[in-house]
Amino acid sequence: MTPIRLGIVGLGRLGMEHARILRFGVPGVRLVAVCSSAKDEVARAQSELDVSAGYLEYERMIAEAELDGVVIASSSAVHTDQIVTAIEAGLHVFCEKPLGTTIEQCRQAEAIVAAHPRQRFMLGFMRRYDSSYRYAVQRIRAGAIGKPFLVRAYGLDPDRFAAGAIQFAATSGGIFLDMMIHDIDLARWLLQAEVRMVHAIGGNFKYPQFGEVGDVDNATALMQFDGDAMGLFYAGRTAAHGYHVETEIVGTEGAIRIDGVPRSTRAMVYTGDGVGEPIVQSFPERFAEAFRNEFLEFAACIREGRSPEVTVQDGTRATAVAYAATESLRSRKAIEVRY
Amino acid sequence: MTPIRLGIVGLGRLGMEHARILRFGVPGVRLVAVCSSAKDEVARAQSELDVSAGYLEYERMIAEAELDGVVIASSSAVHTDQIVTAIEAGLHVFCEKPLGTTIEQCRQAEAIVAAHPRQRFMLGFMRRYDSSYRYAVQRIRAGAIGKPFLVRAYGLDPDRFAAGAIQFAATSGGIFLDMMIHDIDLARWLLQAEVRMVHAIGGNFKYPQFGEVGDVDNATALMQFDGDAMGLFYAGRTAAHGYHVETEIVGTEGAIRIDGVPRSTRAMVYTGDGVGEPIVQSFPERFAEAFRNEFLEFAACIREGRSPEVTVQDGTRATAVAYAATESLRSRKAIEVRY
Amino acid sequence: MTPIRLGIVGLGRLGMEHARILRFGVPGVRLVAVCSSAKDEVARAQSELDVSAGYLEYERMIAEAELDGVVIASSSAVHTDQIVTAIEAGLHVFCEKPLGTTIEQCRQAEAIVAAHPRQRFMLGFMRRYDSSYRYAVQRIRAGAIGKPFLVRAYGLDPDRFAAGAIQFAATSGGIFLDMMIHDIDLARWLLQAEVRMVHAIGGNFKYPQFGEVGDVDNATALMQFDGDAMGLFYAGRTAAHGYHVETEIVGTEGAIRIDGVPRSTRAMVYTGDGVGEPIVQSFPERFAEAFRNEFLEFAACIREGRSPEVTVQDGTRATAVAYAATESLRSRKAIEVRY
Amino acid sequence: MTPIRLGIVGLGRLGMEHARILRFGVPGVRLVAVCSSAKDEVARAQSELDVSAGYLEYERMIAEAELDGVVIASSSAVHTDQIVTAIEAGLHVFCEKPLGTTIEQCRQAEAIVAAHPRQRFMLGFMRRYDSSYRYAVQRIRAGAIGKPFLVRAYGLDPDRFAAGAIQFAATSGGIFLDMMIHDIDLARWLLQAEVRMVHAIGGNFKYPQFGEVGDVDNATALMQFDGDAMGLFYAGRTAAHGYHVETEIVGTEGAIRIDGVPRSTRAMVYTGDGVGEPIVQSFPERFAEAFRNEFLEFAACIREGRSPEVTVQDGTRATAVAYAATESLRSRKAIEVRY
Repeated sequence: MTPIRLGIVGLGRLGMEHARILRFGVPGVRLVAVCSSAKDEVARAQSELDVSAGYLEYERMIAEAELDGVVIASSSAVHTDQIVTAIEAGLHVFCEKPLGTTIEQCRQAEAIVAAHPRQRFMLGFMRRYDSSYRYAVQRIRAGAIGKPFLVRAYGLDPDRFAAGAIQFAATSGGIFLDMMIHDIDLARWLLQAEVRMVHAIGGNFKYPQFGEVGDVDNATALMQFDGDAMGLFYAGRTAAHGYHVETEIVGTEGAIRIDGVPRSTRAMVYTGDGVGEPIVQSFPERFAEAFRNEFLEFAACIREGRSPEVTVQDGTRATAVAYAATESLRSRKAIEVRY
Repeated sequence: MTPIRLGIVGLGRLGMEHARILRFGVPGVRLVAVCSSAKDEVARAQSELDVSAGYLEYERMIAEAELDGVVIASSSAVHTDQIVTAIEAGLHVFCEKPLGTTIEQCRQAEAIVAAHPRQRFMLGFMRRYDSSYRYAVQRIRAGAIGKPFLVRAYGLDPDRFAAGAIQFAATSGGIFLDMMIHDIDLARWLLQAEVRMVHAIGGNFKYPQFGEVGDVDNATALMQFDGDAMGLFYAGRTAAHGYHVETEIVGTEGAIRIDGVPRSTRAMVYTGDGVGEPIVQSFPERFAEAFRNEFLEFAACIREGRSPEVTVQDGTRATAVAYAATESLRSRKAIEVRY
Repeated sequence: MTPIRLGIVGLGRLGMEHARILRFGVPGVRLVAVCSSAKDEVARAQSELDVSAGYLEYERMIAEAELDGVVIASSSAVHTDQIVTAIEAGLHVFCEKPLGTTIEQCRQAEAIVAAHPRQRFMLGFMRRYDSSYRYAVQRIRAGAIGKPFLVRAYGLDPDRFAAGAIQFAATSGGIFLDMMIHDIDLARWLLQAEVRMVHAIGGNFKYPQFGEVGDVDNATALMQFDGDAMGLFYAGRTAAHGYHVETEIVGTEGAIRIDGVPRSTRAMVYTGDGVGEPIVQSFPERFAEAFRNEFLEFAACIREGRSPEVTVQDGTRATAVAYAATESLRSRKAIEVRY
Repeated sequence: MTPIRLGIVGLGRLGMEHARILRFGVPGVRLVAVCSSAKDEVARAQSELDVSAGYLEYERMIAEAELDGVVIASSSAVHTDQIVTAIEAGLHVFCEKPLGTTIEQCRQAEAIVAAHPRQRFMLGFMRRYDSSYRYAVQRIRAGAIGKPFLVRAYGLDPDRFAAGAIQFAATSGGIFLDMMIHDIDLARWLLQAEVRMVHAIGGNFKYPQFGEVGDVDNATALMQFDGDAMGLFYAGRTAAHGYHVETEIVGTEGAIRIDGVPRSTRAMVYTGDGVGEPIVQSFPERFAEAFRNEFLEFAACIREGRSPEVTVQDGTRATAVAYAATESLRSRKAIEVRY
């Protein structure tokens, strides 16, 4: 089995998580190059991961590293350009969400991907590769809950990450593009339907700093899908207890709920403070397995010449809904979503 | 301790539940008269409950039965008239929700109650007297979750009650007045704020029959409260697993969720069908204790000359919001709530 | 319906709980007399419960109070004598566990009860009247878990009651007679079999004070029943989190477990301290409903002339097993149980 | 990083699981040889795992395959001999439990390991490498539950594996050596104490076939440890709901319980059949992560020249206790454990 040669661009928190998984956790893949504009990040990654090729310039890595594919985990603003560069160079591409920071960028990514049908493109909606979500989808598709008509989705970051989020608030794209976009993708996937209307509200209940850049610390949204299915969404940056991604899908014959209590272990602790369960504290902890699974799938798609389930269109659609939610929050009106 | 002499009007399902509790479960109260326009209901109640005075006419019971107070559990359309009659006759009044079927009726009830400040008036929002909700409120008021800013509320009837609900669909007032009104009251109480905007959507996902009278079998609503607090609501008539009232309140320092799994016992059952817990199947089962507690409180308020926490205004406000939700569903627009 | 006239002897913590329930919670019963050798207890009970007849001497209450039955909640040492006195006076008797403090006393109680078959006798194994245990038994008898062959039973008192227990350690009869006896009764009832062998061990892991009177603060026992069914028992006085009675019954086709987490409400609390559930803190809190149910049953048995499910023999058998456990602890040997 | 070259002997169910993990899941390790006396097993493993060297004879693999270490997953009877052969050949050894099938064999293994202190020896008590157990131990050692004094341990195989177990009943060593030995190791590890006394009972409640070879289908045991700590054990082969390994440790200030409900996903399913959670169905599913972690640790110990936490003595001690339990079951007496 010839290994698939991959490079990665972006060596921040998520990029390094990805790089570690690619280096140690994905059989059949070889991480052969790392790239970041930050010299120390490159040095650290090369040393920790024992990768000989380090680059400060993305284009040079693409040109020189003899890659089969690239993993893009850089800042959102450059995603589209990096996709185009890699696809045009004949590489397979795995790109972290978002696909782009404007709908136009998303369309541009769609076009380049469509023009190169033999190269694989995959977007990092990793939750679809989490085993609990896969179990849910398998049960739903098997009819266990009848016809699904409602999704409720929570995406909550721990309060102690708020300070960090405030720092990046100006460039994050806002709570809908930065956080709720994952839940929007889940809902579309679970309901197999497109969002038609979104009405979002929110507020700065704890950190007025988000308001200074037009963002909020907590937001909710009501969505209506084609076929009248409904969505209740909640994204927040102030969860006291930990990282809490909870999703429920309701159908005519039942419902499935994932992570009403986002446990980090199988332990129940009985002490003078009460009875409780330790809770997941970060997305790498919660989705470690999903991150690995999505790279396994990316590698398998390359090897087998088939397309991943998560398409470039999924990126555009989720982005469009997140933009509509942003517009709804600002205009204080329900918004029709156009694709 | 002289017993408080009460009569009850309305001997349907809920009325009989109330009558049984008043007869056997509330020390210091004596159920001395029962009333219904259905002769057989009166006879059955008199016999089962050993109550000597039975009436077919409400006015006659009020005039003759030497009551201290009356419990109104009749059909919604006559609530307001019966309130007025009883208050004018000098009685204390406990009235099941809704206060009235129009805002005008609610205002009329408000006026008569206001004009007789020494007579107690209490509305049957029994959930406020459930021990789990009381625990939650006590913790919230003590600051355990910081400043509350979000309520999520589910009110789901078991699927096997749907056939019955279809029969009464034309006169129920619709899913918001019939079901969600309890959740609206909870949210107002938990957040201590009034609803400013409501956007409701829904559909007939399983029973098109509800659509024939302009109602839906499942509905959701987004609400915005004064001070920007948010509400996510879900009312449904097709829950496969049982009767499911779930409420979550989120604050800046924590959250409290009631009945993510609405258990009917403390048992966990491990069999070849999996591991599960038996589930509550009806509102009398779920809220038996709350029904009793609210009558204990009603009696205590009469005896001690103080006002119940649930006021006549609570009835008007919740009704106004339910009407706004109904209007939103029909107009496919967000609605500003006016009181 | 002529009320059943009851008196109560013993007005300590449990006695007062019982008296309150009899006074306010049991339709068809009238608490007409209270008795204790402590003058202030009698006065307080009369005043709080509005009972006109108060006695310092048990025999006088029996002779003068025109009772139909008596509830015995006095100290264990006098149970048997008081049973005999009441039965000979023609009264029905409800007696708190234990039936007696020696097997001889138990036999004496058995004899007097047997000699007066038209008078009802009931022993206070209230757990059998808890709705979760009744649910379990109903499911078991219906075959839901096949043939039961194992019971695991925990009976844990909260650590903060330990100081009180130390005070009464010398007269409590020890951890098996004082605490595990309830679990022994549950196991016999659930398995419908008698204990043949018991091997008990224990230690003073936190409070050496119990050791000074030959008792332990935590103990476990292995039991073997007729038909080879097995029992694992744990009684403890040092539970940090609260009052924890947990029972599991395992059969050839499944298992039922009651109160793996002994929740006091339906609330789940998410805060910076983690995610947890409030816990039951005392037996009156946990078994309030069971205490009421057993008195309802006692009254119904008197009225309907039938025998309660809990017999005087149940008291003797459980006591015999508790004694065998005590002997096992002391002798460091497994003990054959003889009845 | 030079890879560690490992071979594996035994390619049955567990052996193949191990081989897959070694081949794909452990960075820094190279699986270079597979061995089994069954020709088809060797062929299948070579093909599935892309391993060029296959052997039918263990001694030949040891002699020829240029290994750094060997993983022994063969039948219990040959474990000791294979350990000796490998150690004498200068290899590091990972051996599945049990260490041997007699105490004499265990002592022999102890001796050879002791004589070669620079070669790593690790026993496959994988549960110690499960993240939930590691969390528990870390909390216990940090004092979260005070001084531990009680372990309760369940090890239950799913009923549908019973037919297979019956087939191997004659050679399994019995329920204590085959199953409870893992729980004995856990208890010793959690309590940091040795078992002093064991009293085991059991029966064939569903499958008399186990009785034909002197075994039982369900067994319990009471154990007493040095320092008086207590153990309640339950091993069973008839669990209707799935594979259920549950462990609780109780201390003077709290308790930790692992897997009261052994969930296989994070999903809660609400349907007409009730509300339930999918359950783990086999040991490879439950302990996949632990199996990988123990090999990571084995590799790290080899690389870093340090000893694993699980020692050869742990194997002897657990085996001695399992033998004592077997003797107790047969003799119907409590047994003092001698090492």
